[in-house]
Amino acid sequence: MRNVALLLKFVGTNYSGWQRQKNADSIQGALEDAIAHVTGAKSGVTGCSRTDAGVHANFFVCNFKTDATIPEKNLPLALNSFLPGDIAVQRATDVPEPFNARFDCVKKEYVYRIYQSKIRDPFLENRAYRYIHAFDLEEAKSASRAFVGTHDFTAFAASGRTTKTSVRTIYSSGMEKKGGEIFFIVSGDGFLYNMVRIMAGTLLLVAGGKIKAADIERIIKSRDRKEAGPTAPAHGLYLNRVFYEDKEF
Amino acid sequence: MRNVALLLKFVGTNYSGWQRQKNADSIQGALEDAIAHVTGAKSGVTGCSRTDAGVHANFFVCNFKTDATIPEKNLPLALNSFLPGDIAVQRATDVPEPFNARFDCVKKEYVYRIYQSKIRDPFLENRAYRYIHAFDLEEAKSASRAFVGTHDFTAFAASGRTTKTSVRTIYSSGMEKKGGEIFFIVSGDGFLYNMVRIMAGTLLLVAGGKIKAADIERIIKSRDRKEAGPTAPAHGLYLNRVFYEDKEF
Repeated sequence: MRNVALLLKFVGTNYSGWQRQKNADSIQGALEDAIAHVTGAKSGVTGCSRTDAGVHANFFVCNFKTDATIPEKNLPLALNSFLPGDIAVQRATDVPEPFNARFDCVKKEYVYRIYQSKIRDPFLENRAYRYIHAFDLEEAKSASRAFVGTHDFTAFAASGRTTKTSVRTIYSSGMEKKGGEIFFIVSGDGFLYNMVRIMAGTLLLVAGGKIKAADIERIIKSRDRKEAGPTAPAHGLYLNRVFYEDKEF
Repeated sequence: MRNVALLLKFVGTNYSGWQRQKNADSIQGALEDAIAHVTGAKSGVTGCSRTDAGVHANFFVCNFKTDATIPEKNLPLALNSFLPGDIAVQRATDVPEPFNARFDCVKKEYVYRIYQSKIRDPFLENRAYRYIHAFDLEEAKSASRAFVGTHDFTAFAASGRTTKTSVRTIYSSGMEKKGGEIFFIVSGDGFLYNMVRIMAGTLLLVAGGKIKAADIERIIKSRDRKEAGPTAPAHGLYLNRVFYEDKEF
Protein backbone atom coordinates (compact mmCIF):
# COMPACT_ATOMS: atom_id res chain seq x y z
CA MET A 1 0.00 0.00 0.00
CA ARG A 2 1.28 3.49 -0.83
CA ASN A 3 1.94 6.04 1.88
CA VAL A 4 1.38 9.53 0.53
CA ALA A 5 2.38 12.76 2.27
CA LEU A 6 0.56 15.99 1.45
CA LEU A 7 1.76 19.52 2.00
CA LEU A 8 -1.24 21.75 2.79
CA LYS A 9 -2.00 25.43 3.20
CA PHE A 10 -5.23 26.49 4.87
CA VAL A 11 -7.10 29.50 6.20
CA GLY A 12 -8.48 28.23 9.51
CA THR A 13 -11.22 30.83 9.99
CA ASN A 14 -14.15 28.65 8.97
CA TYR A 15 -13.01 25.45 10.70
CA SER A 16 -13.20 23.97 14.17
CA GLY A 17 -9.54 23.02 13.80
CA TRP A 18 -7.59 20.22 12.15
CA GLN A 19 -9.27 17.30 13.89
CA ARG A 20 -12.35 15.64 12.44
CA GLN A 21 -15.43 16.25 14.61
CA LYS A 22 -19.09 15.46 14.44
CA ASN A 23 -21.29 18.46 13.58
CA ALA A 24 -18.37 20.81 12.86
CA ASP A 25 -16.28 21.50 9.77
CA SER A 26 -12.67 20.44 10.17
CA ILE A 27 -9.64 20.48 7.87
CA GLN A 28 -9.12 16.74 8.38
CA GLY A 29 -12.76 16.02 7.55
CA ALA A 30 -12.67 18.09 4.36
CA LEU A 31 -9.44 16.40 3.28
CA GLU A 32 -10.64 12.86 4.05
CA ASP A 33 -13.78 13.54 2.03
CA ALA A 34 -11.70 14.78 -0.91
CA ILE A 35 -9.42 11.73 -0.71
CA ALA A 36 -12.45 9.42 -0.74
CA HIS A 37 -13.70 11.20 -3.90
CA VAL A 38 -10.37 11.01 -5.71
CA THR A 39 -9.25 7.51 -4.69
CA GLY A 40 -12.66 5.87 -4.34
CA ALA A 41 -11.79 4.63 -0.84
CA LYS A 42 -11.97 6.03 2.65
CA SER A 43 -8.61 6.64 4.29
CA GLY A 44 -7.75 8.25 7.61
CA VAL A 45 -5.30 11.15 7.41
CA THR A 46 -2.60 11.72 10.03
CA GLY A 47 -1.74 15.38 10.56
CA CYS A 48 1.55 16.81 11.83
CA SER A 49 -0.32 18.75 14.49
CA ARG A 50 -3.71 19.42 15.93
CA THR A 51 -4.64 23.04 15.38
CA ASP A 52 -7.29 25.01 17.24
CA ALA A 53 -10.35 26.59 15.64
CA GLY A 54 -9.35 29.66 13.64
CA VAL A 55 -5.62 28.82 13.51
CA HIS A 56 -4.05 28.95 10.03
CA ALA A 57 -1.31 26.97 8.31
CA ASN A 58 1.20 28.18 5.76
CA PHE A 59 2.78 24.73 5.80
CA PHE A 60 1.09 21.63 7.20
CA VAL A 61 2.15 18.04 6.46
CA CYS A 62 -0.14 15.02 6.70
CA ASN A 63 -0.12 11.49 5.31
CA PHE A 64 -2.53 8.76 4.32
CA LYS A 65 -2.41 5.19 2.98
CA THR A 66 -3.94 4.34 -0.37
CA ASP A 67 -4.11 1.72 -3.11
CA ALA A 68 -4.91 4.36 -5.72
CA THR A 69 -2.50 4.52 -8.65
CA ILE A 70 -2.93 8.21 -9.44
CA PRO A 71 0.60 9.70 -9.83
CA GLU A 72 1.77 12.00 -7.04
CA LYS A 73 2.14 14.92 -9.42
CA ASN A 74 -1.58 14.77 -10.32
CA LEU A 75 -2.84 14.46 -6.76
CA PRO A 76 -2.79 18.15 -5.72
CA LEU A 77 -5.06 19.36 -8.54
CA ALA A 78 -7.32 16.30 -8.19
CA LEU A 79 -7.76 16.80 -4.43
CA ASN A 80 -8.08 20.58 -4.71
CA SER A 81 -11.01 20.20 -7.08
CA PHE A 82 -12.89 18.56 -4.18
CA LEU A 83 -11.63 20.91 -1.46
CA PRO A 84 -13.11 24.29 -0.52
CA GLY A 85 -11.14 27.39 -1.55
CA ASP A 86 -9.68 27.96 1.90
CA ILE A 87 -7.77 24.63 1.91
CA ALA A 88 -5.30 23.62 -0.78
CA VAL A 89 -2.88 20.74 -1.27
CA GLN A 90 0.38 22.32 -2.44
CA ARG A 91 2.31 19.10 -3.12
CA ALA A 92 1.96 15.30 -2.81
CA THR A 93 4.90 12.96 -2.27
CA ASP A 94 5.16 9.18 -1.96
CA VAL A 95 6.95 8.47 1.31
CA PRO A 96 8.31 5.25 2.90
CA GLU A 97 5.71 3.03 4.54
CA PRO A 98 6.64 3.87 8.16
CA PHE A 99 6.48 7.66 7.67
CA ASN A 100 4.08 9.26 10.15
CA ALA A 101 3.43 13.00 9.81
CA ARG A 102 2.75 13.38 13.52
CA PHE A 103 5.32 11.20 15.25
CA ASP A 104 8.19 11.77 12.82
CA CYS A 105 7.98 15.54 13.05
CA VAL A 106 11.17 16.78 14.73
CA LYS A 107 10.68 20.55 14.63
CA LYS A 108 7.82 23.01 14.21
CA GLU A 109 7.86 26.72 13.48
CA TYR A 110 4.93 28.99 14.33
CA VAL A 111 4.31 32.63 13.48
CA TYR A 112 2.02 34.91 15.44
CA ARG A 113 0.94 37.99 13.44
CA ILE A 114 0.11 41.27 15.20
CA TYR A 115 -0.79 44.66 13.79
CA GLN A 116 -0.99 47.78 15.85
CA SER A 117 -3.97 50.00 14.99
CA LYS A 118 -6.91 51.66 16.67
CA ILE A 119 -8.97 50.97 13.52
CA ARG A 120 -9.44 47.46 12.16
CA ASP A 121 -8.11 46.56 8.73
CA PRO A 122 -10.74 44.43 6.92
CA PHE A 123 -8.01 42.66 4.94
CA LEU A 124 -6.36 41.47 8.16
CA GLU A 125 -9.66 40.53 9.83
CA ASN A 126 -9.29 36.96 11.20
CA ARG A 127 -5.71 36.85 9.87
CA ALA A 128 -3.70 38.95 12.32
CA TYR A 129 -4.33 40.10 15.87
CA ARG A 130 -5.03 43.81 16.24
CA TYR A 131 -3.32 45.42 19.22
CA ILE A 132 -4.55 48.91 20.02
CA HIS A 133 -2.02 50.12 22.62
CA ALA A 134 1.54 51.42 22.37
CA PHE A 135 3.91 48.55 21.50
CA ASP A 136 7.42 48.42 22.99
CA LEU A 137 9.05 46.35 20.27
CA GLU A 138 12.58 46.33 21.71
CA GLU A 139 11.42 45.09 25.12
CA ALA A 140 9.14 42.46 23.51
CA LYS A 141 12.00 41.31 21.24
CA SER A 142 14.21 40.89 24.25
CA ALA A 143 11.46 38.94 26.07
CA SER A 144 10.89 36.66 23.07
CA ARG A 145 14.56 35.60 23.14
CA ALA A 146 14.18 34.40 26.75
CA PHE A 147 12.13 31.40 25.60
CA VAL A 148 15.11 29.82 23.82
CA GLY A 149 16.47 26.68 25.46
CA THR A 150 15.18 23.56 27.16
CA HIS A 151 12.64 24.40 29.84
CA ASP A 152 9.63 23.02 31.66
CA PHE A 153 6.92 25.14 30.01
CA THR A 154 4.07 24.26 32.41
CA ALA A 155 3.47 28.00 32.94
CA PHE A 156 2.77 28.31 29.20
CA ALA A 157 0.39 25.36 28.83
CA ALA A 158 -3.37 25.31 28.97
CA SER A 159 -4.79 22.43 30.92
CA GLY A 160 -6.92 19.93 29.04
CA ARG A 161 -4.35 17.83 27.23
CA THR A 162 -2.03 15.42 28.96
CA THR A 163 1.51 14.92 27.77
CA LYS A 164 4.24 12.79 29.40
CA THR A 165 6.44 15.79 30.04
CA SER A 166 6.13 19.56 29.92
CA VAL A 167 9.78 19.98 28.97
CA ARG A 168 10.28 21.35 25.47
CA THR A 169 13.26 22.75 23.61
CA ILE A 170 12.84 26.09 21.87
CA TYR A 171 15.42 26.40 19.10
CA SER A 172 14.71 29.96 18.06
CA SER A 173 12.38 32.72 19.18
CA GLY A 174 12.23 36.34 18.04
CA MET A 175 10.10 39.23 16.87
CA GLU A 176 10.37 41.37 13.78
CA LYS A 177 8.46 44.27 12.26
CA LYS A 178 7.76 44.04 8.55
CA GLY A 179 5.32 45.99 6.39
CA GLY A 180 3.35 47.45 9.28
CA GLU A 181 2.99 44.07 11.02
CA ILE A 182 4.82 42.52 13.94
CA PHE A 183 5.73 38.83 13.69
CA PHE A 184 6.57 36.60 16.63
CA ILE A 185 8.40 33.60 15.15
CA VAL A 186 9.22 30.61 17.31
CA SER A 187 10.54 27.12 16.57
CA GLY A 188 10.96 24.12 18.81
CA ASP A 189 10.91 20.34 19.08
CA GLY A 190 7.29 20.50 20.17
CA PHE A 191 4.73 22.72 21.85
CA LEU A 192 2.30 22.16 24.71
CA TYR A 193 -1.41 22.89 24.30
CA ASN A 194 -1.89 26.63 23.51
CA MET A 195 1.80 27.23 24.25
CA VAL A 196 2.51 29.61 21.35
CA ARG A 197 -0.67 31.59 22.03
CA ILE A 198 0.23 31.94 25.73
CA MET A 199 3.79 32.96 24.76
CA ALA A 200 2.29 35.57 22.40
CA GLY A 201 -0.14 36.79 25.06
CA THR A 202 2.74 37.14 27.52
CA LEU A 203 4.85 39.06 24.97
CA LEU A 204 1.89 41.42 24.50
CA LEU A 205 2.01 42.14 28.25
CA VAL A 206 5.71 42.98 27.82
CA ALA A 207 5.00 45.14 24.75
CA GLY A 208 2.34 47.01 26.71
CA GLY A 209 4.68 47.67 29.66
CA LYS A 210 2.75 45.50 32.14
CA ILE A 211 5.75 43.21 32.76
CA LYS A 212 9.43 43.33 31.74
CA ALA A 213 11.52 41.08 29.50
CA ALA A 214 13.44 40.02 32.60
CA ASP A 215 10.21 38.53 34.03
CA ILE A 216 10.05 35.75 31.42
CA GLU A 217 12.73 33.65 33.14
CA ARG A 218 10.88 33.94 36.46
CA ILE A 219 7.54 33.01 34.83
CA ILE A 220 9.04 29.92 33.19
CA LYS A 221 10.59 28.85 36.51
CA SER A 222 7.29 29.34 38.38
CA ARG A 223 5.66 26.52 36.34
CA ASP A 224 2.42 28.33 37.22
CA ARG A 225 0.00 29.10 34.39
CA LYS A 226 -1.33 32.10 36.34
CA GLU A 227 2.07 33.83 36.15
CA ALA A 228 2.05 33.94 32.34
CA GLY A 229 -0.09 36.23 30.20
CA PRO A 230 -3.49 35.51 28.65
CA THR A 231 -3.90 33.17 25.68
CA ALA A 232 -3.67 35.36 22.57
CA PRO A 233 -6.54 34.87 20.09
CA ALA A 234 -6.31 31.94 17.69
CA HIS A 235 -6.71 33.98 14.51
CA GLY A 236 -3.19 35.49 14.71
CA LEU A 237 -1.50 32.06 14.78
CA TYR A 238 0.02 30.27 11.78
CA LEU A 239 1.79 26.92 11.67
CA ASN A 240 4.61 28.15 9.42
CA ARG A 241 6.84 25.12 8.82
CA VAL A 242 7.35 21.56 10.01
CA PHE A 243 10.52 19.53 9.71
CA TYR A 244 11.35 15.82 9.41
CA GLU A 245 14.63 13.98 9.88
CA ASP A 246 14.94 12.39 6.46
CA LYS A 247 12.53 14.31 4.32
CA GLU A 248 12.17 17.91 3.17
CA PHE A 249 8.78 19.07 1.95
CA MET B 1 -26.34 70.48 8.25
CA ARG B 2 -22.92 68.81 8.46
CA ASN B 3 -21.38 67.12 5.45
CA VAL B 4 -19.14 64.28 6.57
CA ALA B 5 -16.68 62.40 4.37
CA LEU B 6 -15.63 58.87 5.29
CA LEU B 7 -12.56 57.01 4.16
CA LEU B 8 -13.37 53.27 3.89
CA LYS B 9 -11.56 50.00 3.33
CA PHE B 10 -13.55 46.93 2.38
CA VAL B 11 -13.17 43.34 1.25
CA GLY B 12 -15.75 43.06 -1.55
CA THR B 13 -16.09 39.27 -1.59
CA ASN B 14 -19.38 39.02 0.27
CA TYR B 15 -21.10 42.00 -1.39
CA SER B 16 -23.02 42.66 -4.58
CA GLY B 17 -20.96 45.84 -4.99
CA TRP B 18 -21.07 49.36 -3.59
CA GLN B 19 -24.61 50.24 -4.61
CA ARG B 20 -27.58 49.54 -2.35
CA GLN B 21 -29.84 46.84 -3.80
CA LYS B 22 -32.92 45.01 -2.72
CA ASN B 23 -32.27 41.39 -1.65
CA ALA B 24 -28.49 41.67 -1.83
CA ASP B 25 -25.83 42.84 0.62
CA SER B 26 -24.07 45.99 -0.50
CA ILE B 27 -21.36 48.18 1.02
CA GLN B 28 -23.61 51.25 0.75
CA GLY B 29 -26.47 49.44 2.45
CA ALA B 30 -24.28 48.25 5.34
CA LEU B 31 -22.88 51.75 5.79
CA GLU B 32 -26.26 53.50 5.64
CA ASP B 33 -27.56 51.09 8.26
CA ALA B 34 -24.58 51.81 10.52
CA ILE B 35 -25.04 55.59 10.06
CA ALA B 36 -28.72 55.28 11.02
CA HIS B 37 -27.70 53.40 14.18
CA VAL B 38 -25.05 55.92 15.20
CA THR B 39 -26.81 59.18 14.27
CA GLY B 40 -30.40 58.08 14.86
CA ALA B 41 -31.43 59.27 11.40
CA LYS B 42 -31.43 57.80 7.92
CA SER B 43 -29.02 59.44 5.51
CA GLY B 44 -28.10 58.52 1.94
CA VAL B 45 -24.38 58.02 1.30
CA THR B 46 -22.70 59.18 -1.91
CA GLY B 47 -19.78 56.97 -2.96
CA CYS B 48 -16.78 57.99 -5.07
CA SER B 49 -17.43 55.08 -7.40
CA ARG B 50 -19.72 52.20 -8.05
CA THR B 51 -17.86 48.94 -7.63
CA ASP B 52 -18.85 45.54 -9.01
CA ALA B 53 -19.60 42.49 -6.90
CA GLY B 54 -16.39 41.06 -5.47
CA VAL B 55 -14.27 44.17 -6.12
CA HIS B 56 -12.26 45.44 -3.13
CA ALA B 57 -11.22 48.87 -1.92
CA ASN B 58 -8.05 49.87 -0.12
CA PHE B 59 -9.23 53.48 -0.21
CA PHE B 60 -12.82 54.53 -0.91
CA VAL B 61 -14.28 57.97 -0.11
CA CYS B 62 -17.98 58.66 0.45
CA ASN B 63 -20.00 61.41 2.11
CA PHE B 64 -23.31 61.93 3.88
CA LYS B 65 -25.28 64.77 5.46
CA THR B 66 -26.16 64.67 9.13
CA ASP B 67 -27.39 66.74 12.07
CA ALA B 68 -25.59 64.49 14.55
CA THR B 69 -23.09 66.23 16.81
CA ILE B 70 -20.76 63.28 17.35
CA PRO B 71 -17.18 64.57 16.79
CA GLU B 72 -15.47 63.40 13.61
CA LYS B 73 -12.70 61.70 15.57
CA ASN B 74 -15.24 59.40 17.31
CA LEU B 75 -17.16 58.47 14.18
CA PRO B 76 -14.91 55.67 12.83
CA LEU B 77 -15.07 53.52 15.98
CA ALA B 78 -18.78 54.25 16.43
CA LEU B 79 -19.63 53.25 12.84
CA ASN B 80 -17.28 50.26 12.85
CA SER B 81 -19.07 48.81 15.86
CA PHE B 82 -22.17 48.51 13.62
CA LEU B 83 -20.33 47.37 10.49
CA PRO B 84 -19.35 43.79 9.62
CA GLY B 85 -15.64 42.90 9.88
CA ASP B 86 -15.02 43.15 6.14
CA ILE B 87 -15.90 46.88 6.00
CA ALA B 88 -14.19 49.52 8.13
CA VAL B 89 -14.28 53.30 8.31
CA GLN B 90 -10.64 54.42 8.55
CA ARG B 91 -11.25 58.14 9.05
CA ALA B 92 -14.11 60.68 9.17
CA THR B 93 -13.72 64.34 8.18
CA ASP B 94 -16.12 67.30 8.15
CA VAL B 95 -16.08 68.71 4.63
CA PRO B 96 -17.62 71.84 3.07
CA GLU B 97 -21.33 71.61 2.29
CA PRO B 98 -20.95 71.31 -1.52
CA PHE B 99 -18.41 68.42 -1.35
CA ASN B 100 -19.63 65.42 -3.34
CA ALA B 101 -17.50 62.25 -3.20
CA ARG B 102 -18.60 61.19 -6.66
CA PHE B 103 -18.63 64.36 -8.75
CA ASP B 104 -15.65 66.07 -7.12
CA CYS B 105 -13.34 63.09 -7.60
CA VAL B 106 -10.64 64.15 -10.11
CA LYS B 107 -8.45 61.05 -10.23
CA LYS B 108 -8.75 57.35 -9.39
CA GLU B 109 -6.10 54.70 -9.03
CA TYR B 110 -6.85 50.99 -9.36
CA VAL B 111 -4.68 47.96 -8.73
CA TYR B 112 -5.24 44.56 -10.31
CA ARG B 113 -3.50 41.75 -8.40
CA ILE B 114 -2.31 38.62 -10.21
CA TYR B 115 -0.36 35.63 -8.94
CA GLN B 116 1.10 32.99 -11.16
CA SER B 117 0.67 29.46 -9.85
CA LYS B 118 -0.69 26.09 -10.94
CA ILE B 119 -1.87 25.55 -7.36
CA ARG B 120 -4.23 27.94 -5.60
CA ASP B 121 -3.12 29.80 -2.51
CA PRO B 122 -5.97 29.79 0.04
CA PHE B 123 -4.75 33.10 1.50
CA LEU B 124 -5.13 34.79 -1.91
CA GLU B 125 -8.48 33.15 -2.69
CA ASN B 126 -10.91 35.90 -3.77
CA ARG B 127 -8.15 38.49 -3.29
CA ALA B 128 -5.89 38.05 -6.32
CA TYR B 129 -6.39 36.46 -9.73
CA ARG B 130 -4.49 33.22 -10.27
CA TYR B 131 -2.90 32.89 -13.68
CA ILE B 132 -1.64 29.40 -14.49
CA HIS B 133 0.35 29.96 -17.70
CA ALA B 134 3.81 31.40 -18.40
CA PHE B 135 3.78 35.17 -17.83
CA ASP B 136 5.85 37.45 -20.08
CA LEU B 137 6.25 40.33 -17.63
CA GLU B 138 8.40 42.57 -19.84
CA GLU B 139 5.97 42.41 -22.77
CA ALA B 140 2.98 42.99 -20.46
CA LYS B 141 4.76 45.94 -18.81
CA SER B 142 5.35 47.46 -22.20
CA ALA B 143 1.69 46.91 -23.15
CA SER B 144 0.46 48.49 -19.91
CA ARG B 145 2.34 51.70 -20.72
CA ALA B 146 0.46 52.02 -24.03
CA PHE B 147 -2.74 52.98 -22.15
CA VAL B 148 -1.26 56.29 -20.98
CA GLY B 149 -2.76 59.38 -22.60
CA THR B 150 -6.15 60.68 -23.67
CA HIS B 151 -8.00 58.12 -25.78
CA ASP B 152 -11.47 56.99 -26.71
CA PHE B 153 -11.61 53.76 -24.68
CA THR B 154 -14.77 52.31 -26.26
CA ALA B 155 -12.83 49.08 -26.99
CA PHE B 156 -12.27 48.71 -23.23
CA ALA B 157 -15.82 49.36 -22.06
CA ALA B 158 -18.58 46.89 -21.34
CA SER B 159 -21.95 47.93 -22.63
CA GLY B 160 -24.71 48.54 -20.10
CA ARG B 161 -23.84 51.95 -18.76
CA THR B 162 -24.20 55.13 -20.74
CA THR B 163 -21.75 57.97 -20.35
CA LYS B 164 -21.58 61.19 -22.35
CA THR B 165 -18.18 60.38 -23.75
CA SER B 166 -15.87 57.38 -23.90
CA VAL B 167 -12.78 59.59 -23.87
CA ARG B 168 -10.71 59.22 -20.72
CA THR B 169 -7.23 60.33 -19.74
CA ILE B 170 -4.91 57.72 -18.25
CA TYR B 171 -2.23 59.46 -16.18
CA SER B 172 -0.12 56.44 -15.33
CA SER B 173 -0.20 52.74 -16.13
CA GLY B 174 2.36 50.07 -15.32
CA MET B 175 3.04 46.63 -13.95
CA GLU B 176 5.37 45.49 -11.22
CA LYS B 177 6.31 42.22 -9.56
CA LYS B 178 6.52 42.23 -5.77
CA GLY B 179 6.57 39.37 -3.29
CA GLY B 180 5.48 36.71 -5.78
CA GLU B 181 2.59 38.82 -7.07
CA ILE B 182 2.16 40.93 -10.18
CA PHE B 183 0.42 44.29 -9.81
CA PHE B 184 -1.15 46.24 -12.67
CA ILE B 185 -1.50 49.81 -11.39
CA VAL B 186 -3.42 52.39 -13.41
CA SER B 187 -4.64 55.91 -12.67
CA GLY B 188 -6.85 58.22 -14.69
CA ASP B 189 -9.45 60.96 -14.57
CA GLY B 190 -12.18 58.33 -14.82
CA PHE B 191 -12.90 54.84 -16.05
CA LEU B 192 -15.66 53.37 -18.20
CA TYR B 193 -17.73 50.40 -17.03
CA ASN B 194 -15.41 47.40 -16.48
CA MET B 195 -12.55 49.32 -18.09
CA VAL B 196 -9.79 48.29 -15.67
CA ARG B 197 -10.88 44.65 -15.78
CA ILE B 198 -10.87 44.65 -19.59
CA MET B 199 -7.44 46.34 -19.58
CA ALA B 200 -6.22 43.63 -17.17
CA GLY B 201 -7.76 40.87 -19.32
CA THR B 202 -6.02 42.31 -22.39
CA LEU B 203 -2.68 42.51 -20.56
CA LEU B 204 -3.10 38.84 -19.63
CA LEU B 205 -3.40 38.06 -23.38
CA VAL B 206 -0.11 39.91 -23.88
CA ALA B 207 1.53 38.13 -20.93
CA GLY B 208 0.43 34.79 -22.39
CA GLY B 209 1.86 35.60 -25.84
CA LYS B 210 -1.53 35.72 -27.62
CA ILE B 211 -1.05 39.34 -28.71
CA LYS B 212 1.86 41.79 -28.58
CA ALA B 213 2.36 45.03 -26.67
CA ALA B 214 2.32 46.83 -30.03
CA ASP B 215 -1.30 45.66 -30.55
CA ILE B 216 -2.65 47.85 -27.73
CA GLU B 217 -2.54 51.02 -29.83
CA ARG B 218 -4.42 49.29 -32.63
CA ILE B 219 -7.04 47.91 -30.22
CA ILE B 220 -7.66 51.34 -28.68
CA LYS B 221 -8.03 52.86 -32.17
CA SER B 222 -10.48 50.16 -33.26
CA ARG B 223 -13.04 51.34 -30.67
CA ASP B 224 -14.35 47.77 -30.92
CA ARG B 225 -14.90 45.84 -27.68
CA LYS B 226 -14.32 42.56 -29.56
CA GLU B 227 -10.71 43.55 -30.31
CA ALA B 228 -9.76 43.79 -26.61
CA GLY B 229 -9.28 40.84 -24.26
CA PRO B 230 -11.80 39.27 -21.90
CA THR B 231 -12.96 40.99 -18.71
CA ALA B 232 -10.63 39.80 -15.95
CA PRO B 233 -12.41 38.47 -12.83
CA ALA B 234 -13.64 41.03 -10.29
CA HIS B 235 -11.83 39.52 -7.31
CA GLY B 236 -8.38 40.75 -8.46
CA LEU B 237 -9.48 44.40 -8.60
CA TYR B 238 -8.90 47.02 -5.89
CA LEU B 239 -9.84 50.68 -5.88
CA ASN B 240 -6.51 51.84 -4.46
CA ARG B 241 -6.80 55.62 -4.11
CA VAL B 242 -9.09 58.49 -5.08
CA PHE B 243 -8.11 62.14 -5.33
CA TYR B 244 -9.93 65.46 -4.89
CA GLU B 245 -8.93 68.97 -5.94
CA ASP B 246 -8.97 70.66 -2.54
CA LYS B 247 -8.91 67.82 -0.09
CA GLU B 248 -6.51 65.04 0.78
CA PHE B 249 -7.87 62.02 2.65
